[in-house]
Amino acid sequence: MKTAAPAPVAAIVTVGNELLYGETVDTNAAWLARSLAALGAPVARKLTVGDVTAEIHGAVRSALDVADFVLVSGGLGPTADDVTKQAVADLFGRRLHVDRDLLGRLEALFRARGLPTMPALNVSQAEVPEGATILRNPNGTAPGLALEVDTKLVVLLPGVPRELRGIFEGDLGALLRNRLGDRLTPVHHRVIHTTGVAESRLAELLEAELPADRGPVTLAYLPDLRGVDLRLSARGVSADEAAAWFGRYERAIGPVVAPWRFEAESGDVVEALNAALAATGRRVAVAESCTGGLIAKRITDRAGSSEVFVGGVVAYDNAVKVGELGVSDETLREQGAVSEEVARQMARGVAERFGADAGIGITGVAGPGGGTAEKPVGTVWLATVVDGEVESHRLSLVGGREAIRERAAQEAIARLYRRVIHARSRA
Amino acid sequence: MKTAAPAPVAAIVTVGNELLYGETVDTNAAWLARSLAALGAPVARKLTVGDVTAEIHGAVRSALDVADFVLVSGGLGPTADDVTKQAVADLFGRRLHVDRDLLGRLEALFRARGLPTMPALNVSQAEVPEGATILRNPNGTAPGLALEVDTKLVVLLPGVPRELRGIFEGDLGALLRNRLGDRLTPVHHRVIHTTGVAESRLAELLEAELPADRGPVTLAYLPDLRGVDLRLSARGVSADEAAAWFGRYERAIGPVVAPWRFEAESGDVVEALNAALAATGRRVAVAESCTGGLIAKRITDRAGSSEVFVGGVVAYDNAVKVGELGVSDETLREQGAVSEEVARQMARGVAERFGADAGIGITGVAGPGGGTAEKPVGTVWLATVVDGEVESHRLSLVGGREAIRERAAQEAIARLYRRVIHARSRA
Repeated sequence: MKTAAPAPVAAIVTVGNELLYGETVDTNAAWLARSLAALGAPVARKLTVGDVTAEIHGAVRSALDVADFVLVSGGLGPTADDVTKQAVADLFGRRLHVDRDLLGRLEALFRARGLPTMPALNVSQAEVPEGATILRNPNGTAPGLALEVDTKLVVLLPGVPRELRGIFEGDLGALLRNRLGDRLTPVHHRVIHTTGVAESRLAELLEAELPADRGPVTLAYLPDLRGVDLRLSARGVSADEAAAWFGRYERAIGPVVAPWRFEAESGDVVEALNAALAATGRRVAVAESCTGGLIAKRITDRAGSSEVFVGGVVAYDNAVKVGELGVSDETLREQGAVSEEVARQMARGVAERFGADAGIGITGVAGPGGGTAEKPVGTVWLATVVDGEVESHRLSLVGGREAIRERAAQEAIARLYRRVIHARSRA
Repeated sequence: MKTAAPAPVAAIVTVGNELLYGETVDTNAAWLARSLAALGAPVARKLTVGDVTAEIHGAVRSALDVADFVLVSGGLGPTADDVTKQAVADLFGRRLHVDRDLLGRLEALFRARGLPTMPALNVSQAEVPEGATILRNPNGTAPGLALEVDTKLVVLLPGVPRELRGIFEGDLGALLRNRLGDRLTPVHHRVIHTTGVAESRLAELLEAELPADRGPVTLAYLPDLRGVDLRLSARGVSADEAAAWFGRYERAIGPVVAPWRFEAESGDVVEALNAALAATGRRVAVAESCTGGLIAKRITDRAGSSEVFVGGVVAYDNAVKVGELGVSDETLREQGAVSEEVARQMARGVAERFGADAGIGITGVAGPGGGTAEKPVGTVWLATVVDGEVESHRLSLVGGREAIRERAAQEAIARLYRRVIHARSRA
C-alpha cells in the first residue's frame, strides 16, 4: 500500500514599507494564499516586513523554518528602495550577475514601447542571483526568480499584482506542479453565483435544504456588492468523489437558488448577459444617469462585447436626456429626473435611436447630496426594454455613493439578463 | 541636551485559518498598522498564522524578537477553533482563571440582549491569564487582554474588525500612550502625485536632484496603472521640522516633477480635473469608444461631478459615431475607426452637441482581438478639445485589455486636466 507523502507547506513573505504603514492592503498575500490552496499546498505562515535588508533576512529565515517553499513578493523594482533581490542573494551567499538573455529581452521591451534606450536603472532588473531560475513576467519588466536552498525553494516575485499573478499562472505554477507533483492535495471547489438576494435570506433558505450527511464538503457564503457566491469545497477526496458530492448538494439546493442564479466562469453577470444576447442575436444599448457610464463600462470590460453592445449615452444633464434620448421636457418638469417615466423613456429612447433590441434606462440619487424626503439618497428608477416592451422597478439602495452605483448597475444588468434568457426560452 | 529614546517598535500577529486560505483579506493588519504609525510606533513585522497552538507560539516568539510590543488579533471567540488565549497563556506559563467582574459584565450583556442565561460556551470569554490587564470591548463580548512579558507587552484582541477597533481606540490606545509616552514618534508624510511618466524615468530624473543631505526623509515610489506617487516620509522629528525638510525636497524636485504633477487629496487626477473645470466655469462631455464608458464613470465617481460633467456617448458601433457624434462616414471608411481624425471628430462632436466647453474623444484597440500590424492592440488615438481647439495624440499602450483601458482613460483625463489648467492661467 502506498502512503501519500505529506502535502508540501508554503509560506508567504510580502515586502514593502507601505504594507507596514497600512497604506496598502496586502491583496497579494491573500491572492497567493488562495492560489496555493487551490494548487494543493497549504500556507502555514504569512509575514510582512519593510524594505530593510535585516528584516527581509529575518522573515525569509522564519518562513523557511516552517515551510517547504517560500514566495517572497515586492521590492524587485529598479529604484533604490527595492532591496529584496540583493537581500535574498546575500542571505544565501549568491552573487548577482547580469543575465544577457534577460537584458536583451528587457531592451527589446523598451524598444517596443518606442523608447530608444533603456533607462540605466532598469539594468538592475536583469541581475540574477547565481543558480536562480528565471520565471517569465508576461506583464512587466521584473521577472520572478526561483532559488534552490538545500531541499527548499525560495521564489522572488514583483509586488505589482498583475505581474505577480501572471508569473504565478505561468512559469511558477508549472515549476511548482512539476516539482511537487503528487504531493499536492488540491481542494476541490464548485461555485454557485447568485445576485439579487441577501446573504442572510439565502442562508435561511438553504440551511433547511442542505443534505443531512455533509460528507467532505463545506459551504461558504462569499458576499460582495454584486451578489453572493456560494462556494462548496471538498478536501481530501478525488476529483470524482468531490464531483459526486457537489452533485448531491446541487440537487438539494439548486431549486432554492434558481431565481437568483447565473452561470459565468468569471463570476460576472455581464458574461452571462453578453452570452444570452449573442445566443439570441440581440444587441443592447444603455442610457445612464446616476451610474454615469458604469453599466457601459462593465459591459465593455469583457472582450468580444462589440458583438452585442451598440453603445450608450451618459445623460447627466437633463438637456442630454431630452436632446439625445427623447425624454419629454414635460415629464422631467412634472415628475422630476428621478422618476419611473423618465427611466422608461430613457430605455426606450436609447434602444430606438441606437437600433438595439434591448436597452437599459437608469436614473437615481447616488448621493451624498441630492436626496429629499420623498426621494432619499439610494432611490433609483430602473427600466429595461426587450423587443419594445418596457419593465420598470424602483430600487431603494443603501451604502455610500460607490456602493449605490455598483448595486444599481448590478441590478440593471441582472434584470436585463433574466429578461433576455426568458425571451430566448419563448422563441 | 536630551537624547530621544528610540521609538517603540510594534509587531502584529493575526490568527485565523481563513486568512491562510486567502478567503479573507486581512484588513485588521492594515488598520492596526495604520493606527500604530499614526500613534508613533512603527510596525517592524506582520505575521499571520492559522488557529494552531504551535503556530501561534512560533509567531508570537518571532514577533517579540523584533518588537517592544506585539498585538495579536483573532481566535478569542467562544468556539472550539478559538485557541489564541490558551496558546499565549501557555507560552508564558500563565494560568487562565475566571475573572468575576468580567463574568458579571458578560452576563449583564446577555441579559440586556434579552437572553435569560448566558450560553455556557461564553464563560470561556471571562477567562483571563494571570496578571493580564483587561481592555474593555465596547462592541462585543471578548475583551482585549494585555500581558507584561519581561519588559515587553503582548496584547490579545478579537478578530472582529469593529471590536478590535473599538478596543484600540479606547483602553488600548490609552494604555500605549501612557506606557510609551514621549518615546512615540509619529511618522510625517507628504505625497506628490504624478501621472504620465514611468517610475524608472522619474527615478532617473529625481536622483540627480535630491538634496545631498537627506536628513530624516525617505522617498518611496508608489506606481500603479494610473501613475506614480512619490511619498516623502520623515521620522523622529517634529511636525514643523518635517515640514521644513519636505519644503527643501519640494524646492529640489518640484521643477522636475512639474510636467506630470497634479494636486488631489484623493490621489485621483479626476479630482484635479473637476476642480480645474469648476474653477474656470467650464463643463466637459466625453465620447468614448475603446474605454467604453470608463472615462465617464471615473468623472462621475466623484460627488459633485454634475457641476462640471454634462454627459457622454459610448460610441462602440460606428453607426453611433456617425449618428450621435457627427463623425464622417468618409473618414471612417478611409482612415478606419481607430484614427486621429475620428478621435478629433468625436471630441469636437460631443462637445458641440452637448454644449460643453471641453471634450474628450478616444478610439483604440483594447484587445485581446482586433489588432493589426499597422494598428496593434494598445494603439489608441486620443483627442481633447478646449474652447473649440482640438489636440490629438497617438498612444501605444501595453498590458491586457483592462490595463490598456485604464491607461487610456488616465491619459485622457490627465491631458485634459493640463489643458484646462493652462487655459485658466491664460484667462
